[in-house]
Amino acid sequence: MAFSDFIHDKAIELGKDSIRMTTAAGSGHPTSSLSIIHIVTVLMHDVMNYDPADPWNPGSDRLVLSEGHAVPAVYAAYADVAGVVGKSRAEARVLKRDELIELREADSVLDGHPNPAEGFPFFDAATGSLGQGLSVAAGLALAARKRKIDKKIYTIIGDGESREGQIWEAMDFIAENKLTNVVAIFNCNGHGQAGHVSVQQSAESVAAKAKAFGWHAMSIDGHNPDAVREALINATKQDKPTAIIAKTTKGWGCPTIQDVSNHGKPVPKDKLDAMFAELDSMRTKLNVNAPTAEDAVIGKPAAAVAMERKNINAGSFDNALRDAGFGSALEKKEMATRRAYGAALLALAKADPRIVALDGDVSNSTFAEVLGKAMPDRFFECKIAEQHVISAAAGMAAGGFVPFASSFAKFISRAYDQIEMAQITRANIKIVGSHAGISLAADGPSQMSLHDVAFFRCATRADNGNGSPASVSFQPSDAVAAFHCTVAMANHEGMCYMRTHRPDVPFIYDANTEFKVGGFHTINEGDDLTIISAGYMIHPVRDVISKLAGEGIKCKLIDAYSFPFDETKLLAAANNKRNRILTVEDNYIGGLAGAVAEAAARAGTMRVDSMTCDRIPKSARSPEAILEYTGLSPAHIEKKIRGLLG
Amino acid sequence: MAFSDFIHDKAIELGKDSIRMTTAAGSGHPTSSLSIIHIVTVLMHDVMNYDPADPWNPGSDRLVLSEGHAVPAVYAAYADVAGVVGKSRAEARVLKRDELIELREADSVLDGHPNPAEGFPFFDAATGSLGQGLSVAAGLALAARKRKIDKKIYTIIGDGESREGQIWEAMDFIAENKLTNVVAIFNCNGHGQAGHVSVQQSAESVAAKAKAFGWHAMSIDGHNPDAVREALINATKQDKPTAIIAKTTKGWGCPTIQDVSNHGKPVPKDKLDAMFAELDSMRTKLNVNAPTAEDAVIGKPAAAVAMERKNINAGSFDNALRDAGFGSALEKKEMATRRAYGAALLALAKADPRIVALDGDVSNSTFAEVLGKAMPDRFFECKIAEQHVISAAAGMAAGGFVPFASSFAKFISRAYDQIEMAQITRANIKIVGSHAGISLAADGPSQMSLHDVAFFRCATRADNGNGSPASVSFQPSDAVAAFHCTVAMANHEGMCYMRTHRPDVPFIYDANTEFKVGGFHTINEGDDLTIISAGYMIHPVRDVISKLAGEGIKCKLIDAYSFPFDETKLLAAANNKRNRILTVEDNYIGGLAGAVAEAAARAGTMRVDSMTCDRIPKSARSPEAILEYTGLSPAHIEKKIRGLLG
Repeated sequence: MAFSDFIHDKAIELGKDSIRMTTAAGSGHPTSSLSIIHIVTVLMHDVMNYDPADPWNPGSDRLVLSEGHAVPAVYAAYADVAGVVGKSRAEARVLKRDELIELREADSVLDGHPNPAEGFPFFDAATGSLGQGLSVAAGLALAARKRKIDKKIYTIIGDGESREGQIWEAMDFIAENKLTNVVAIFNCNGHGQAGHVSVQQSAESVAAKAKAFGWHAMSIDGHNPDAVREALINATKQDKPTAIIAKTTKGWGCPTIQDVSNHGKPVPKDKLDAMFAELDSMRTKLNVNAPTAEDAVIGKPAAAVAMERKNINAGSFDNALRDAGFGSALEKKEMATRRAYGAALLALAKADPRIVALDGDVSNSTFAEVLGKAMPDRFFECKIAEQHVISAAAGMAAGGFVPFASSFAKFISRAYDQIEMAQITRANIKIVGSHAGISLAADGPSQMSLHDVAFFRCATRADNGNGSPASVSFQPSDAVAAFHCTVAMANHEGMCYMRTHRPDVPFIYDANTEFKVGGFHTINEGDDLTIISAGYMIHPVRDVISKLAGEGIKCKLIDAYSFPFDETKLLAAANNKRNRILTVEDNYIGGLAGAVAEAAARAGTMRVDSMTCDRIPKSARSPEAILEYTGLSPAHIEKKIRGLLG
Repeated sequence: MAFSDFIHDKAIELGKDSIRMTTAAGSGHPTSSLSIIHIVTVLMHDVMNYDPADPWNPGSDRLVLSEGHAVPAVYAAYADVAGVVGKSRAEARVLKRDELIELREADSVLDGHPNPAEGFPFFDAATGSLGQGLSVAAGLALAARKRKIDKKIYTIIGDGESREGQIWEAMDFIAENKLTNVVAIFNCNGHGQAGHVSVQQSAESVAAKAKAFGWHAMSIDGHNPDAVREALINATKQDKPTAIIAKTTKGWGCPTIQDVSNHGKPVPKDKLDAMFAELDSMRTKLNVNAPTAEDAVIGKPAAAVAMERKNINAGSFDNALRDAGFGSALEKKEMATRRAYGAALLALAKADPRIVALDGDVSNSTFAEVLGKAMPDRFFECKIAEQHVISAAAGMAAGGFVPFASSFAKFISRAYDQIEMAQITRANIKIVGSHAGISLAADGPSQMSLHDVAFFRCATRADNGNGSPASVSFQPSDAVAAFHCTVAMANHEGMCYMRTHRPDVPFIYDANTEFKVGGFHTINEGDDLTIISAGYMIHPVRDVISKLAGEGIKCKLIDAYSFPFDETKLLAAANNKRNRILTVEDNYIGGLAGAVAEAAARAGTMRVDSMTCDRIPKSARSPEAILEYTGLSPAHIEKKIRGLLG
């Protein structure tokens, strides 16, 4: 019983730490922490193979705490094993037990929920918005398999949390891909926030579901150290991935706080001693003998070499197109931006082993299939599950890869919560939304993205702590731009988003034109008015400008393909004799209209009018017809320009 | 066999229509339509009780086509039963078969995917972004049960589509609530867009999953009319909700286009006759005899009375607070906006039977629990499944209710795709995101909403076709404002969003102050500078203004609590001697900063500086500490103001 004694003893002490730190913080989840305390203790003091002194070691087993609010248990265990914290190796230092009570302080590495970027690299992803951890685990497991690293990914999921559909997207993906190095531990304490969990999330129901999803299911007492260890050890020896259904008690060891009303409530200071006494009395109740240091042993990480991070040269645009089988476009000088994405992706993947792609059953629309067909081992089909696509990509990024995740831009909105979480993680993922805006026309509004520009732009002024924006986004207007923006994304450390379009469009740029984060291009010179546009809308605007030029009206056209852009340079470039700007875009407000207006209103030197999609669109049979319907046709643009010149 | 003959005969003809119209449109999904053609024919020509002449009849059975791209089959059947189309009863007219070939035209009611708002009221929700229909069906079923209407909700879901986690959120909800009036039909043709569906989505796997989720599962041949009818009739007679697993053939009847590569490809014009011949030959193959008109009969709708739509008077602020048990706040003159939401919700629900609320296991944080405790039959606990919360709310709205859907503002972002779809539907739903911005502090960024203001604002300039914005949003700064904004939401026809905050804040407004869509309030007069803020940030800004007033610096403060606002009036109100504005908000850019800058830059009269959250936040123990961390503390605001006064 030495192991059991050791774990119980630890669990009691780490439980006290969990209570102590949440009381000190004045908020947090002591009862959830006590619920997983044995699972965490067995994992972190025995079953996991890892080096607490080097949380960056790529050979280490990983723990994804999907049920992020229970994190005090992990912090307590990590301090107990003298784990190292810090935002980088340069800042690495051992987490002291004394520091635990700094939980949730503004200058503490111990954030309220798992947050690797603030200095807790033991974790791979920010969690706390529920239901995402198993997808992250899937990405980590895929990364390990691809790198031939023999490591395991343990994930703790709340029973109530398993109501989130994304959990079942991940269950499907892991089963389909036979990722037996993932262990899903469902923490079934029966308590949610507002009340008891549904019978749909009972331990029995979760086990039945796991089996129906093609998993092996083991039901155990989550406070029995031997049962927990045995299950964890056996879990990765099955021919299917294993779900451990652990029945636990929320507030284990402290009967006083086990009622369902105690979710997220720290123990009042004057009750601390009573809680500690309750926990201590568990030693007697459980017949715990004094353990010795050797009763549980942390194993060594697997052998693994870090992947080299270097600038990626994707070669020339022409070569990439030919390689992708799109050579004929070079003669036609016309191609959809989404095809250029596919060509760039393949060129990048050939140049660097870190480049991989994930897609949600639309790779023949996004053209991620160019990579999928040429290098099938670098492409991961996630099926129709966009939330999983993004979180799994974040997991692969944590595993050393540079993943490109694609779907229709509209369906990417399915994963905006996951994208926000990946921004908090500072995940180095690249998101590509195809069929953006309204130019896809015929399929109608359920396939059109109108909010994406505003959504992604809004994070471009937020610093991610590394001197980069929380997110960077690109709107290429032609195939050349799409190619180079894809390469720029691959070489930018941090989240990037690119929107591509369905229709074929003529080449605008010379094949060697430079595209970079923060850049823009002046496509046409003119002093009568400046038009700032991006993406698909560059084309109708160009047509209008050409027409007006015939009358001697000279409009400047700036392609603001990047968010953020350099405001000072952009305003200087936009200068014209009327000091007026017109922005044109095929999405809702908050995108270009907002970005240019914010810059101009700050400087106070130029007026900005805008054309955006100002009605909810519907189907129309051609890009021309939908532009007409939404008031964005060349005729509308011309009329607007004439009005401004008026 | 008369029924079977009738259905096969119809299916062949409706299949031809589906092919014909997609060919005419030059895009669309004939093969998916053929896959569901028997199911649709049996439903619409026999099993469903409804009145094709009155699609607005609240007693009718409903069909939710979750697999929206297969819609040509429904259009064809609807024309065949002389179904009525039109945006309103005033515009009602019979859909002519000749009109089918106008599919996807800009002026056609036949959108590329189901879209009731464009004139096809047979449907209740826009679908086409996959995985949402079963949640809509759940909302419709709840609405019917509450109104005691004996109607059934049929939902057709693609096999590949069932990879979307939201399907399983809905499966849980429907099973938990024993909504046996919902029938989920899984269309298992084995084909996706980019390839075959996963083995995880095989008919056998879907059936096993359905059972594990507590459903009754029936597996049938989806092209056998008698089997389809029998299953549909038996489905609603079980003690559990029933999933019909229908094995089908994509491109049924047309062997030439049954390969997996044919997804979403219309038949070329010159192949039409060959396809029709293939379909016709099915008559011989299946021994179809000439049917008679009485072989299938559409049943009559159930008795039902429309719910009265009227302006709702929620009574006074004081009474609402007392009724909610928050009377002590009236003396303290301090309360969190989220509590005021709960009080308003209860007052509204007492005043009008259409008011209901849905929440995702956080009703004790959002304070939707105020309604849940007082009137449990008007509150629906959806557990931790935000996507389902929103789509189910859209279903309840289609069923006549005015649903309020709440969660943390951060977790609402989990459902932005569903919200976009609800905007297309013009669903009359009210969304409330609590713990918005950063003022919740301690729990950290995984619980903070920083993108929501930009996301919801971006749709406020898009007309929804009824003269209203696609979405309206509110940022109340105190309890009075939150109360009245909640009432304004209830009385506004169309989608509304309101963000509430965690901390208690002092009352600013007189209890009878008016709050309305498009409004704003000048809280403080001053001519040195105008500060425009909203929500929580009003409070630190007020403190700074008070301090500066002591030095004789007079700043105007405008509470721009509504998006959209009246730009002309706001700019006029913001007038000051420096013609300068500072916006202050605790979220990323694209919100107030963008809205005010867009207005000012258009007018060209005032300069606008902005303070937003410009770094990814982390945990801090108090609102003050997180404002300090993000550069939004009173000291930061004061410094910024002094700089602008220069």
